Amino acid sequence: MKGFFQLISSTDFLKLFKQFSPIQTETIPLKSALGRIPAKPIIAPEQLPPFSRSTMDGFAVRARDTFGCGESEPALLEIVGEIAMGAPGTAVTLRPGQTCRIWTGGELPTQADSVVMVEYSRLLDETTVEVFKPVAPGENVIQAGEDTRPGQTILPGNTRLRPQDLGVLAGLGITELEVYRQAVVTILSTGDELVPPDNQPGPGQIRDINSTTLAALVTETGAIARQGGIIADDLPLMLNTCRQAVAQSDMVLLSGGSSVGKRDFTLKVLEQLDHAKLLAHGVAIRPGKPTILARIHNKAVFGLPGHVSSAMVVFYLFVRPLLLRLSGLEEQNSLLAIEAVTDQQIPSAIGREEYVRVQLDWKSQDKRPVATPIYGKSGILSPLVKADGLLAISRDCEGIDQGQPVSVLLFPGSS
Amino acid sequence: MKGFFQLISSTDFLKLFKQFSPIQTETIPLKSALGRIPAKPIIAPEQLPPFSRSTMDGFAVRARDTFGCGESEPALLEIVGEIAMGAPGTAVTLRPGQTCRIWTGGELPTQADSVVMVEYSRLLDETTVEVFKPVAPGENVIQAGEDTRPGQTILPGNTRLRPQDLGVLAGLGITELEVYRQAVVTILSTGDELVPPDNQPGPGQIRDINSTTLAALVTETGAIARQGGIIADDLPLMLNTCRQAVAQSDMVLLSGGSSVGKRDFTLKVLEQLDHAKLLAHGVAIRPGKPTILARIHNKAVFGLPGHVSSAMVVFYLFVRPLLLRLSGLEEQNSLLAIEAVTDQQIPSAIGREEYVRVQLDWKSQDKRPVATPIYGKSGILSPLVKADGLLAISRDCEGIDQGQPVSVLLFPGSS
Repeated sequence: MKGFFQLISSTDFLKLFKQFSPIQTETIPLKSALGRIPAKPIIAPEQLPPFSRSTMDGFAVRARDTFGCGESEPALLEIVGEIAMGAPGTAVTLRPGQTCRIWTGGELPTQADSVVMVEYSRLLDETTVEVFKPVAPGENVIQAGEDTRPGQTILPGNTRLRPQDLGVLAGLGITELEVYRQAVVTILSTGDELVPPDNQPGPGQIRDINSTTLAALVTETGAIARQGGIIADDLPLMLNTCRQAVAQSDMVLLSGGSSVGKRDFTLKVLEQLDHAKLLAHGVAIRPGKPTILARIHNKAVFGLPGHVSSAMVVFYLFVRPLLLRLSGLEEQNSLLAIEAVTDQQIPSAIGREEYVRVQLDWKSQDKRPVATPIYGKSGILSPLVKADGLLAISRDCEGIDQGQPVSVLLFPGSS
Repeated sequence: MKGFFQLISSTDFLKLFKQFSPIQTETIPLKSALGRIPAKPIIAPEQLPPFSRSTMDGFAVRARDTFGCGESEPALLEIVGEIAMGAPGTAVTLRPGQTCRIWTGGELPTQADSVVMVEYSRLLDETTVEVFKPVAPGENVIQAGEDTRPGQTILPGNTRLRPQDLGVLAGLGITELEVYRQAVVTILSTGDELVPPDNQPGPGQIRDINSTTLAALVTETGAIARQGGIIADDLPLMLNTCRQAVAQSDMVLLSGGSSVGKRDFTLKVLEQLDHAKLLAHGVAIRPGKPTILARIHNKAVFGLPGHVSSAMVVFYLFVRPLLLRLSGLEEQNSLLAIEAVTDQQIPSAIGREEYVRVQLDWKSQDKRPVATPIYGKSGILSPLVKADGLLAISRDCEGIDQGQPVSVLLFPGSS
């Protein structure tokens, strides 16, 4: 029977991504680097801290001068100065029995090896302080180079930069760095029935939902979304628009043209695109069966299901991992998988992986949230808004029991 | 002993946030609304879908014409036309025994109540089709208004907009909407020892790490970070800079000035700021004890610990929830809490809540990740880079056993 799909498993689909490599890199300022992905490990150019620093407010001492002291037998030290913040502490040298006031972050004087917290000291007069708790050498001090040494790998490449990572780079004076550029993804909606969201649909027409949703999904992934607009079901027009989109982007998402009736259309377009190689045409998952993937050199063209809820599942399962791979991320785990328990039985058909939308209730007594399936026909939008994630049921499983622990793929904005 | 803090519990600290209200709203285009927070529930202005649509490619039929048919006894129907996509399907009326070709998303003809999938049909000639599986009325059809009805609440207010939410709004023709404006947060680093990251520090000087880290944390929260720069330890200068920062922002983060030695400085500034009300001065958590919070009308001024690792903990525990509250979010859960198991004993001191940085290994046999504590002096930066989240130990707990299930607050970029 002509018209059926050649289904491959989701595992085999993901293996196809090995045919793609990360895209080019660019150099950007540190200030814009949140969420970006360094192209290679980052090496410390110098030591941190640059000098031995106090981690407390108090008195810089030679530790042995405090040995044996206590509440009843305080050590008496001569105050010979104060290390002002930002001043060179090593300009002062402590002789036995001497101390210097110091603040958190201040540079230790020469010969000082530790700091007594101000809480364990008592001033007798301007130049004398009693210390009533001994310190060990190195106590309340970070040694020069203790944090990082020159040549040390500070951050691995191929992971996303987080706020704390940027902080460490700032501390090392690394104010620009090489990262993968953001992948550009062009989104095309196909269908004679579609009008842009700001138009009033005529009879038989409907507003384009997929462009807005897919663009936001691309943005959420850290890539750049280009809305290519709506293309009528017209082969030469579609071919021409696709050719341009491929030239201008790293990935093209065609949505709406992969149902049984229209996929020949998408296929014809892909066949006629120069150098296009069809990698997959149908996946054994539900929803998301009519997914198409083609490769043009290192560029990807996806044919996505027309229903936005199915397109979204395919996006999270396949488009996002491939986009992360193109963007240079080493781990392409698409969504965070968390453990939940089900509140009811969830039946499933043998022979294909099923992805059930679920709502999560975090207020349960259990440490794990409770997952409730959100059912609805695949063309219906309103259940989408209620869902927090996807519960995966494997192809050899007939269903999930009530109260069974399950793994839920969490939608990024849903926590 | 002068100089000790008046500690309050983290629970009491969070209760102070009731004194703050969400900030103003603004109207923005749908295209820029990802992650933004609607100021009120969004109501459907019209019905969706606007007409009864097919969810399959196939033949629109009167269901009763297929009743009783089967592989051996197909129903024979007369094809009277094809509903082109985007064309008014209701222009055609089906009489008994008649059918129309239809595509996914097409408008049903008048008198049609269901759709036979193309897979269950066989063309005899141009105008005759055999149907060998009966359909029930409504099968493979979404009724007009079945998804949403005019006046129905589509999205609650006060939650972040996700890609799927934007899609539903696009479908309803809502192309602009009222959201809370993004809170503006000014970040000031204080300390004579600090130089900007692109400067070479002199003796006793160190690069400012906190401005970069805090700005990225603010950005990650969805607010707008303004780097106010480094202020020397000079009271009139600090007071003047703070006054300006308060005037220009919804929140001010002062970092570096809250250790025992410098906090009087921050306190003096807060006392002299017009209308400033000191709400808290010290929290019973570790790290993060020297945290200060003041309110000026509906604006917040935080004094944060000087060590960036401590400042980051305080940011996630307190600054971020307050920022989310100002931004109009109903749930101000700062970080996602997931269940993990520990790989070793973790001791803790009675009397204060402890937040231990942990690295998570997701590749364990267990469904839950394994948490390994990352120790390091609080002034050391390199452990920060390894940590994926924070393990909370309550104030009455002496420690966590090896293999014990624990709750880990996940850093946003770490999954």
